[in-house]
Amino acid sequence: MAWVDATTESLGPEDVRLPAARGRVLAEAIHALGPIPCENRAALDGFAIQASASLGASSYNPIRLPLIGVNAGDALPAGADAVVPLQLAERDDQACIEIVEPVAAGDNVEQQGAVATIGATMAPAGTRLAARHIGLLAVAGLSLVSVVRRPRVQILIVKPTKGAESEDANASMIRVAVERDGGVIGECVAVERDQMAIGTALIETDGTGRGTNDHSAAALAGAGELAIHGVALCPGETAGLGRTVSGLPVVLLPGAPASCLWVYELFAGRAIRRLGGRVAELPCRSRGMTTARKIVSSLGMTEICPVRFGAAGTIEPLPSFAEIGLMAAVSADGFVIVPQGSEGYPQGARLTVYLYDEC
Amino acid sequence: MAWVDATTESLGPEDVRLPAARGRVLAEAIHALGPIPCENRAALDGFAIQASASLGASSYNPIRLPLIGVNAGDALPAGADAVVPLQLAERDDQACIEIVEPVAAGDNVEQQGAVATIGATMAPAGTRLAARHIGLLAVAGLSLVSVVRRPRVQILIVKPTKGAESEDANASMIRVAVERDGGVIGECVAVERDQMAIGTALIETDGTGRGTNDHSAAALAGAGELAIHGVALCPGETAGLGRTVSGLPVVLLPGAPASCLWVYELFAGRAIRRLGGRVAELPCRSRGMTTARKIVSSLGMTEICPVRFGAAGTIEPLPSFAEIGLMAAVSADGFVIVPQGSEGYPQGARLTVYLYDEC
Repeated sequence: MAWVDATTESLGPEDVRLPAARGRVLAEAIHALGPIPCENRAALDGFAIQASASLGASSYNPIRLPLIGVNAGDALPAGADAVVPLQLAERDDQACIEIVEPVAAGDNVEQQGAVATIGATMAPAGTRLAARHIGLLAVAGLSLVSVVRRPRVQILIVKPTKGAESEDANASMIRVAVERDGGVIGECVAVERDQMAIGTALIETDGTGRGTNDHSAAALAGAGELAIHGVALCPGETAGLGRTVSGLPVVLLPGAPASCLWVYELFAGRAIRRLGGRVAELPCRSRGMTTARKIVSSLGMTEICPVRFGAAGTIEPLPSFAEIGLMAAVSADGFVIVPQGSEGYPQGARLTVYLYDEC
Repeated sequence: MAWVDATTESLGPEDVRLPAARGRVLAEAIHALGPIPCENRAALDGFAIQASASLGASSYNPIRLPLIGVNAGDALPAGADAVVPLQLAERDDQACIEIVEPVAAGDNVEQQGAVATIGATMAPAGTRLAARHIGLLAVAGLSLVSVVRRPRVQILIVKPTKGAESEDANASMIRVAVERDGGVIGECVAVERDQMAIGTALIETDGTGRGTNDHSAAALAGAGELAIHGVALCPGETAGLGRTVSGLPVVLLPGAPASCLWVYELFAGRAIRRLGGRVAELPCRSRGMTTARKIVSSLGMTEICPVRFGAAGTIEPLPSFAEIGLMAAVSADGFVIVPQGSEGYPQGARLTVYLYDEC
């Protein structure tokens, strides 16, 4: 992970139209160029009046005023400084209203600058844009917004030798995970399981590659740099990390689907999230929970252990990824990451559990 | 919300290609049609052997066996029942390997049916498909998947009278929120602020409409049913809910951006989430937290109060949506929903806080 962090940084900015900016990461802070709103406005549908003219109004002393209808959001006409709600005014046949209560200046008026004064920060750099941000920026009059570019990801599929259909299965899975992490999938290229073919493909696409084990590792070493080959991670031991000649990061994903997924999540996904300006960590929330049963892990390997929720906020371990592959991910409510130096946890231990509802 | 729940239910199914199914909701449970994997497979790269032939192997008694190379995921050749990892076998010049340790039957083999036996549930109806589900279903050989249809949403924009640019701002915001909730935006139609024009537009599109206050409410009443007009919600008091003649739900969103957002989130978004088979509740997580300062709310109105995180897991109220509009949503870390019957909470009260990181 340190290698990924040292190799990748946020890409440069591009302008996108506001309605297409959902989930994008702001490249720079956005400040208000003028007061928002830019004028005093009616806060609700009603009648604009000068408040001082309503002084002394009561049911014994109804006051007649000229009818100036306004809808919520309309600029107040010159001279008006308050709005009488529809239901508090009696409309007569002439162009007049009658009110029986005084209204204070500013009542039902959205003041100029109330939402933001000139120069106020509406969103800091790094904000991931949600509906509320897009609404505010649209209110401020923006139509384009400067966001971090989306990393382009190429998937090279090393063709299976025989009997294994999992290569295409992996491609579907990784495609979806890349989208979740904000990457854009370029083409998906199938290459022969052959060092020369993989090397040529890496050079031609000069993009993130994907292959299995020795052929791919040798091909990457020959067509750039193989920085790391083999990690103390279960599942995912045969992962490889490196760069093409032009410096683009390459992650070698194992062929077994569960290993493929975890090497993606921890290394390739991390690179994509960092390049796209997002938080590098796994895109799922975590929570402290107590394990109702012992969790066993091999010393010397970081192990991803699937767990399900038990009674009263506890968790229980499930059969491992090594045993039941992706079924472990699909059956689980979450997972625990047991570090390399630990043999696991006794019953009753308090652990950080990553929850599967988002990732 | 009860009206929304009574009016909307999950749409019917449609088939989509697996790589395009991210975030979609399974219309029915998916069971394994055969064992997964469908045969015994190599769990890692190495050499396939018959385990019994390795009996007695040691560094004093190396055993030579025929070289049968396999890659992870390959079907085991007939007669083989174990895999020797690459690094535990010595390859000689002939087509043989030499091993110095016995191997047990099943070692480094992924057994037929280990991931799923015939008929096993791989994903229940209602599952929102993430990368791990798509990987498992792809491994099981599926290429299409039956998911709940996405609700189509039409936005009718009632043109502003004068001075207000917030109508288009609202459309951008709502478009993004609809996408987040799994809806598909149909066309976005601007209509005159006129009962006849709005009514005609409602009839023509016969889809979810959007307008302001009285014109829209009267138009909806004329072109279908206005079930609810005005809700005890701040912001969002002027919301309207109803149906077109053909029964399609319509939500009238107020013109003020913060009101528009909250009426969307609580009513229109709820309808869209339900129609698309998702969880109806607000798509953000919540957490119990303690307020470091008094939170004040009007009796008789459900109020959305923006809050920010304070010291040591506490929250503090921020200026309200009524005061600073969408700036409240953008400045806040989350919000508290103060029910109608409450005047607020004293300092030190324990509250449910909805967090803004997802919505």
